[in-house]
Amino acid sequence: MSTDRPADDSHLREEPVSSEELLRGHFLVARRDRVRLPDASLAVREYVCHPGAVVVVAELDDGRFVLERQWRYPLGRAFTEFPAGKLDAGEDPWRCAQRELREETGYSARLWAYAGPVHLAIAYSTEVIHLFFARELRLGERRLDPGEFLDVFPASLEDMLQWVREGQVTDAKTLFCLLWAQNVRAGIWSLDWRQAG
Amino acid sequence: MSTDRPADDSHLREEPVSSEELLRGHFLVARRDRVRLPDASLAVREYVCHPGAVVVVAELDDGRFVLERQWRYPLGRAFTEFPAGKLDAGEDPWRCAQRELREETGYSARLWAYAGPVHLAIAYSTEVIHLFFARELRLGERRLDPGEFLDVFPASLEDMLQWVREGQVTDAKTLFCLLWAQNVRAGIWSLDWRQAG
Repeated sequence: MSTDRPADDSHLREEPVSSEELLRGHFLVARRDRVRLPDASLAVREYVCHPGAVVVVAELDDGRFVLERQWRYPLGRAFTEFPAGKLDAGEDPWRCAQRELREETGYSARLWAYAGPVHLAIAYSTEVIHLFFARELRLGERRLDPGEFLDVFPASLEDMLQWVREGQVTDAKTLFCLLWAQNVRAGIWSLDWRQAG
Repeated sequence: MSTDRPADDSHLREEPVSSEELLRGHFLVARRDRVRLPDASLAVREYVCHPGAVVVVAELDDGRFVLERQWRYPLGRAFTEFPAGKLDAGEDPWRCAQRELREETGYSARLWAYAGPVHLAIAYSTEVIHLFFARELRLGERRLDPGEFLDVFPASLEDMLQWVREGQVTDAKTLFCLLWAQNVRAGIWSLDWRQAG
């Protein structure tokens, strides 16, 4: 075991040799690549191609967050989540974050901050989720997509953390949002706020 | 916006109507289902079928954690991660956690605790990751799978949190492990430790 985080990853690198489309569904797109491993042997890598997404930690004036309850068919149950959505083709993450929050919850925010990218399922997906914070919310009209059903409700940081601890909140993106929210709320991490564009 | 988290999700429920296998790759398996939405309209859901996985927050006697640096081909770069791996068919998560930690890092642990399940990519995957903590580590021999290349190194909680804040650590499972680790370390959340089986 080395004593420091490696600075150079070249001895771990996998190089693409060839690539084919494995699946083009209505939603899922997947590829299969042949790759050359660090010892020059060959292997196969299969992965989902994802356009990227945003998730929004939106804080009400009383300090509570805007949460959603939504059915997630692959798991056969509903989950408590921060508002999130996929990028449209070529869409800027800042615009997408403002759009998704407004469409799904009805809220517009005057102040926004970008915390950074998170990679959701690095073993088999290209998905990056851009994490935003939003403040100074104003409630307007929801505009759900056809076939979209979800509840919107407020919850405190303390309640959310308690629900994680008790196993009632188990969505990975919601948990990494709470890591950020907890450290921002404690004043340990800071954000660079700017006005909505 | 309701004022409480909904207790009843029946108005959100999506019911399966039919199901077909969309893809059976070397690694990826995907299905496409027709579903009935809450308003009785029909929709299509496509998702990856995953056997489940474990991730291990293993703490050295000096308080640092055992981390890995591994190439993740879908993103074309290496990531800093907690040790993790997929369940073999029918494998118990407790056994899998002990096996993966030993094979990938060489460490065995005398004490183990189960924090709970986390759902990684609820929009398009059935994957559940079982989160374990491990203590009282003893270093033995690594036994990597053929074609597996990864570095093992120790890092403190403080370093890991700093790397998240700076955008150097962006793996979602590693971030939700840090949410747990931070609250356990602070004494806010407790774990139920038991001896390795």
